[in-house]
Amino acid sequence: MKVTIWNEYRHEVENAKVAQVYPNGIHHAIKDGLADAGFDIATATLDEPEHGLTEEVLAQTDVLVWWGHKHHKDVQDEIVNRVYQRVLDGMGLIVLHSAHCSKIFNKLLGTPTCQLLWREADEKERLWVIDPAHPIAEGIDRYIELPMEETYGEHFNIPAPDQIVFVSWFEGGEVFRSGVTYHRGRGKIFYFRPGHETYPTYHNKQILQVIANGIRWSAPTRSAKPVYGNAKALEEVKPKVKS
Amino acid sequence: MKVTIWNEYRHEVENAKVAQVYPNGIHHAIKDGLADAGFDIATATLDEPEHGLTEEVLAQTDVLVWWGHKHHKDVQDEIVNRVYQRVLDGMGLIVLHSAHCSKIFNKLLGTPTCQLLWREADEKERLWVIDPAHPIAEGIDRYIELPMEETYGEHFNIPAPDQIVFVSWFEGGEVFRSGVTYHRGRGKIFYFRPGHETYPTYHNKQILQVIANGIRWSAPTRSAKPVYGNAKALEEVKPKVKS
Amino acid sequence: MKVTIWNEYRHEVENAKVAQVYPNGIHHAIKDGLADAGFDIATATLDEPEHGLTEEVLAQTDVLVWWGHKHHKDVQDEIVNRVYQRVLDGMGLIVLHSAHCSKIFNKLLGTPTCQLLWREADEKERLWVIDPAHPIAEGIDRYIELPMEETYGEHFNIPAPDQIVFVSWFEGGEVFRSGVTYHRGRGKIFYFRPGHETYPTYHNKQILQVIANGIRWSAPTRSAKPVYGNAKALEEVKPKVKS
Amino acid sequence: MKVTIWNEYRHEVENAKVAQVYPNGIHHAIKDGLADAGFDIATATLDEPEHGLTEEVLAQTDVLVWWGHKHHKDVQDEIVNRVYQRVLDGMGLIVLHSAHCSKIFNKLLGTPTCQLLWREADEKERLWVIDPAHPIAEGIDRYIELPMEETYGEHFNIPAPDQIVFVSWFEGGEVFRSGVTYHRGRGKIFYFRPGHETYPTYHNKQILQVIANGIRWSAPTRSAKPVYGNAKALEEVKPKVKS
Repeated sequence: MKVTIWNEYRHEVENAKVAQVYPNGIHHAIKDGLADAGFDIATATLDEPEHGLTEEVLAQTDVLVWWGHKHHKDVQDEIVNRVYQRVLDGMGLIVLHSAHCSKIFNKLLGTPTCQLLWREADEKERLWVIDPAHPIAEGIDRYIELPMEETYGEHFNIPAPDQIVFVSWFEGGEVFRSGVTYHRGRGKIFYFRPGHETYPTYHNKQILQVIANGIRWSAPTRSAKPVYGNAKALEEVKPKVKS
Repeated sequence: MKVTIWNEYRHEVENAKVAQVYPNGIHHAIKDGLADAGFDIATATLDEPEHGLTEEVLAQTDVLVWWGHKHHKDVQDEIVNRVYQRVLDGMGLIVLHSAHCSKIFNKLLGTPTCQLLWREADEKERLWVIDPAHPIAEGIDRYIELPMEETYGEHFNIPAPDQIVFVSWFEGGEVFRSGVTYHRGRGKIFYFRPGHETYPTYHNKQILQVIANGIRWSAPTRSAKPVYGNAKALEEVKPKVKS
Repeated sequence: MKVTIWNEYRHEVENAKVAQVYPNGIHHAIKDGLADAGFDIATATLDEPEHGLTEEVLAQTDVLVWWGHKHHKDVQDEIVNRVYQRVLDGMGLIVLHSAHCSKIFNKLLGTPTCQLLWREADEKERLWVIDPAHPIAEGIDRYIELPMEETYGEHFNIPAPDQIVFVSWFEGGEVFRSGVTYHRGRGKIFYFRPGHETYPTYHNKQILQVIANGIRWSAPTRSAKPVYGNAKALEEVKPKVKS
Repeated sequence: MKVTIWNEYRHEVENAKVAQVYPNGIHHAIKDGLADAGFDIATATLDEPEHGLTEEVLAQTDVLVWWGHKHHKDVQDEIVNRVYQRVLDGMGLIVLHSAHCSKIFNKLLGTPTCQLLWREADEKERLWVIDPAHPIAEGIDRYIELPMEETYGEHFNIPAPDQIVFVSWFEGGEVFRSGVTYHRGRGKIFYFRPGHETYPTYHNKQILQVIANGIRWSAPTRSAKPVYGNAKALEEVKPKVKS
């Protein structure tokens, strides 16, 4: 399973506080955290040529993990379309935290997914497992507790998810659909809420476990590529008399 | 309930065969067919200024019915965005037949909804009611039989619908999810398959009944408009000590 | 629209504290609260003959509202089966609060719906609207706040709902899927969480509005009654040669 | 992965025509057909003590495959309850063909799942892949064609599935939701339609592939067992003053 972890990778460079939490960038924190998961992991970042997501890289990627925050607009539409096409063709996509605002998530979902409530207030978050049968909950306790995180609250302007795995409780009074799945074409998508850049969320074992689960769950399905367009009948059609 | 029926209205003008079936256009056939449904119905067409969908018209439209086929590209993006915003704000949208390829449906759903199998072969279609509890099935028999229609077949590249009301059987060997619902933001969407321009489908009483049901079902919900963006906590948040 | 409100009606008789909140019983509090909703409302209680749910009563009931708590076992299986059959045939069912443990809800859903977390601790509950497009959210603000309620928490052992309208936040750290819909056969079901007998929840205008919305939403659909069993082919079947 | 294939195993004994197709029984045909799938497969049948489903057997079963037809009533309720509990606890369940009428499927789903249209008329069936992203469609072409099968038609009285993977087209004019998934508690359920005892359906490679996919998909998730019942608050609850 070939995994590419994409990161905006600007906060970590520009902001000393973030660099302290993620000295090598969020992408490397996740890569290191998944070292024992058995994946073949590469990374890519916004400021590489083609954002590190060349045709070759994407063609060999089974699952793409995406973290972005403040520079969604700097992602070129051409690359977004390239990722979009790969998802439709079966590549898995894990959308993390503020990537709910990314062009690719928005394009795949069809709603202004950037819309939700938020604040940065060092709140406790508790992610409750709503669907303990789901493989994304593998190895997870009844809930994951994070001592401090950015808060997201409903209404989150997403389509009705295929499945809801986690719902978060926040100290400040909000709830949030924090782990939700979709499919588009042959590709599977998992959105997972936690991971603000100033908190050590991607060092948390349970959070890493969920990301690993999401990667496994969203692995490509080798079903036949659908055929579209004009098609001959498979059965004999009786001639009709039009009035 | 204010309903606006939008029609491309070019086939009926350019093609004598179509004009014979729908002398005043598909929009007027549907309008006339819904005369007893108790709606306040207006029409709009592609070649009117702003495609007949000015800010004023849309602001007063509770449910928009959309039929288009060959000239989706001629619909200006500005108008598409205007309709999109209105759907998110609560306007119902009924998408008919080949409008599965329309810019608005594609934008709302996030998949290349134009992708499906099709042929024109005068086939019998039988639309089976899959969900008899759904209000869109109100007054409908176990199935609707159409003696001749254009054929659509799976795979239909749509997201998993919120609800599936009808699945079609086609003489030539295909099946198709023919009546499916979604919601996006506060707006409800109903896609209904039948209605190729060369067949008298929109004169069929049961088809008209389904469209009327869809209009009633997709009427705006007067819930509070969601608030998005930065928000204060509703509960006291305990001060934390960061390590 | 004929509505029957069913109540266990024992707490109010046996417990002075409850009687103070609901002197005429929860059923009458809801009935009075819906006085302006335009329904034709009757009531029925556990200790009436046949629990007040005779064949005649149920045959004329469009929507049945059900509140029960400690005496689920006293509901006769014969009456449960009668209600079950009516739901399959189209009668709407509104299941309130601790009726998640009722025989009828359990039978319709197929899971041990009694299973959830709970405590009585006078906690604040905030019911967030997750689906502002849903007619059950009609007229409701972004959330409903209840100063004190019994707490329910996940995991709630229900099947994946057709739709989730509300998710609750509780002061004590839990979340709960508080407003969920299902359909079974031709009948629609709405489960709505709040309403412990010691709190004045059913005097709250927004809670009553949600119940009224639920009743309207779950009104019977007059689609054709499905036909089951052995059936002749609708199309000619070619003779086959078996090897 | 430990798989137990349960079969009623009476048709094959009593009916020479069926014995010709499945000389060792349907359970062994499926077991043999999955020989290369990497499962540890056992079988069990109705006329064994406890139907071959002792506590020990079930405790060690990851996924149970169930085929039954005419003798559903002979399955003891105690064993049904045992299987039911194991599904809630995480065991996967594959329900084949006429097992839609089985006590266990009915109990888990909550609807009279026995209700559908049917006939035995040697009809062609074509199972269309509706969800090519689903792991149950792994390795499957756009559709599976069976030259002859028993016909099932809608309305099929099941709850809205979590996911629909296949929809069948039948020569005689019906459609049917032939591959559908559910979850109940921690257990995953896959219903797969084909497999009448007089046809060699379980010798078909693609059908066997789907069953193998279903088994892998429904493997238990090792999430924490949910806790139910009275629970202490996780957060401090402010004392309230009741009026």
